[in-house]
Amino acid sequence: MKKETRSRGFRIPGFTTAGIFCGIKTNKQKDLALIFSEEPSVAAGVFTSNKVVSPTITWCQKSLKSSKTFRAILVNSGNANACTGPKGIEDCKSLASNFSKKLSIDPKEILIASTGVIGIPLPKNKIIKAIPALTEKLSPAGWVQSAEAIMTTDLSPKLKSSSFYIGKHKITMGGIAKGSGMIHPNMATMLAFIVTDAVIDKKTLSLALKEANHRTFNRITVDGDTSTNDMALLLANGKAENTNIRVGSSAYNKFVEKLTALCLYLAHKIVLDGEGATKFVTIKVQGAKVKTHAYRIAQSVATSTLVKTALFGQDPNWGRIFAAVGNAEAPFNPDKVRISLNSSVLFDNGVPAKGASQPVLRKKMKSKNISIIIDLKSGIHSDEVYTCDLSYDYVRINAEYTT
Amino acid sequence: MKKETRSRGFRIPGFTTAGIFCGIKTNKQKDLALIFSEEPSVAAGVFTSNKVVSPTITWCQKSLKSSKTFRAILVNSGNANACTGPKGIEDCKSLASNFSKKLSIDPKEILIASTGVIGIPLPKNKIIKAIPALTEKLSPAGWVQSAEAIMTTDLSPKLKSSSFYIGKHKITMGGIAKGSGMIHPNMATMLAFIVTDAVIDKKTLSLALKEANHRTFNRITVDGDTSTNDMALLLANGKAENTNIRVGSSAYNKFVEKLTALCLYLAHKIVLDGEGATKFVTIKVQGAKVKTHAYRIAQSVATSTLVKTALFGQDPNWGRIFAAVGNAEAPFNPDKVRISLNSSVLFDNGVPAKGASQPVLRKKMKSKNISIIIDLKSGIHSDEVYTCDLSYDYVRINAEYTT
Repeated sequence: MKKETRSRGFRIPGFTTAGIFCGIKTNKQKDLALIFSEEPSVAAGVFTSNKVVSPTITWCQKSLKSSKTFRAILVNSGNANACTGPKGIEDCKSLASNFSKKLSIDPKEILIASTGVIGIPLPKNKIIKAIPALTEKLSPAGWVQSAEAIMTTDLSPKLKSSSFYIGKHKITMGGIAKGSGMIHPNMATMLAFIVTDAVIDKKTLSLALKEANHRTFNRITVDGDTSTNDMALLLANGKAENTNIRVGSSAYNKFVEKLTALCLYLAHKIVLDGEGATKFVTIKVQGAKVKTHAYRIAQSVATSTLVKTALFGQDPNWGRIFAAVGNAEAPFNPDKVRISLNSSVLFDNGVPAKGASQPVLRKKMKSKNISIIIDLKSGIHSDEVYTCDLSYDYVRINAEYTT
Repeated sequence: MKKETRSRGFRIPGFTTAGIFCGIKTNKQKDLALIFSEEPSVAAGVFTSNKVVSPTITWCQKSLKSSKTFRAILVNSGNANACTGPKGIEDCKSLASNFSKKLSIDPKEILIASTGVIGIPLPKNKIIKAIPALTEKLSPAGWVQSAEAIMTTDLSPKLKSSSFYIGKHKITMGGIAKGSGMIHPNMATMLAFIVTDAVIDKKTLSLALKEANHRTFNRITVDGDTSTNDMALLLANGKAENTNIRVGSSAYNKFVEKLTALCLYLAHKIVLDGEGATKFVTIKVQGAKVKTHAYRIAQSVATSTLVKTALFGQDPNWGRIFAAVGNAEAPFNPDKVRISLNSSVLFDNGVPAKGASQPVLRKKMKSKNISIIIDLKSGIHSDEVYTCDLSYDYVRINAEYTT
């Protein structure tokens, strides 16, 4: 057993999982994951904002509406089952039907996700043939394997667990996620699956996921593109036997806080593993009159290819940052703006800061973590987004990766 | 005299121009251009939409409002005179004052443009010292030199002239432009200066420039970033002695048509010379219910780094194109969309086109000119934008080019 597997081999009471190679990926890496809930769970989901969606999105959205309980999440990588015509949704039905028989559950209790190339029919039979091997491998300690099985161009599996108390009841939660191009707010080419043993009703679970998602997965961007397949799903099986978590209670606040922390960890891992990324970049805008202005400006800076290439070049180029601020659909006073990078003020009140020595700045730019703070000095609102730089490798990966 | 200089050395009656090296650029390339009108001209301008603007923008906007006639356009490259505090506008005033004395004209009759690094005070004295050398070189055939003198990371000078008749009067127009990063709708890091000998009043000239600009410079994008300094200026000196061109007349329509053609040529040259570009890409969206939807979708595809890296990789990746369509803020029916590339249908009615053979497509992708047509099949409106691919060289140029 690899060290990594041991150290990250968490367990969440009542859940088992597995990841195997079933023949979709040509490089023979794991490409099929199953998360199984021994008891009926409640579930919540958030989905891509792209108008072109995979039938897996449609399947999950329908199931979440029509079923009260859920038992499994089936995920394949290597084929997105998107833009495949009516066959796409038929394949989802067929997979759910076959897995439900093997697992003795209802087809509607199975949530389905796919990621990979689009426009090529899902090799459904390879997945169906793999049902015995996959289900046999289900284990409470299988999270590294399932995290590996949902990867596409990701360089490493992304998983995390945490535990906390609500009253005397220990709550455990854990999740896996994948990136790594097309990452952008509103669920852009990313998948995240989180499970917990908390007692929480479906409506509250859904609200908690939305809150956490809004502050984490919806605050990351790699290249400004959203995808057809992305989703985050959250299952809760109630094994912890705590009092039901109600909206607005201190238990709810704690649950959301812990869920947000877990999602933020996974979101950061996705950015760090952004295609070709060499730096993790936080863009914070503060002093805004309106929160949406702060968000728009942060987004404009985070998606500027000129800013992102300057960061890759380790150039403390406040000029490109300031120009990207001016590009946003948000009013501000250019003569007030202050731009800081890793605590050094680069630019203030419309002119370059005098104290900013180039050698000190160049040294700071070598850090793997870059924090840019843009202070508009006009109000009390702030927002932040997370991104990475734009490197040769981003171009290489995306020029070579085919349809 | 170089062959290029000869073949493109057009003349516009009543205008002289020059381009020299005055000491701003460290690589000793030409960095100062002057366009001089022997007679008072009327002028029009369009400017960047960025909220952070160079004092050159402020200077030109004020002059265009307060002066009826114009005699010169002064342009330096290598230093943008942006984010330089109150000194920026003082430097504009000082330059106009010094040039006006030498040229015996009013300071308000001088329009000023700058491009290059931002945040560094303009080396004004180098420019002032160069006044004798620059004015001495003024020549009716100096357009290649001035086109060279406004370049930054451009690989080649961009210039073009044309002539046509209004009644019995031959009208001549000619212009120069520069790119080449930060190119995006609404005048993003680009400069264009066009002169004509037509008789046309200021108001009509302004309308004609807006119309032409809307269909040309505002339809190109290299990297989605707009800049602090960009503008297109148009001077008309009336030497052609045609009857004044009035809005709505056939003469006006012809003038706009010819101006648009000239601007389109320069706009295409800017895209072709986009930083690191290997392909010229036209994105046309047709069959839209509303024109703005067509525009938004075309923009979404043209600014998608995933689409642009696929084009660089010569990959007929309709999946990324379709996902970028879905990313736009515009409603459409995914099941109707047809995507064609250089006349091959890649995707139709929600599924990949069956006839599209990979070898044929791969061959088409090798073309330097790529035309992508997205047909929404839902209406009669269309729009198109022009862009380039995203290559290693874009990253190299922008990671190495410093503030």
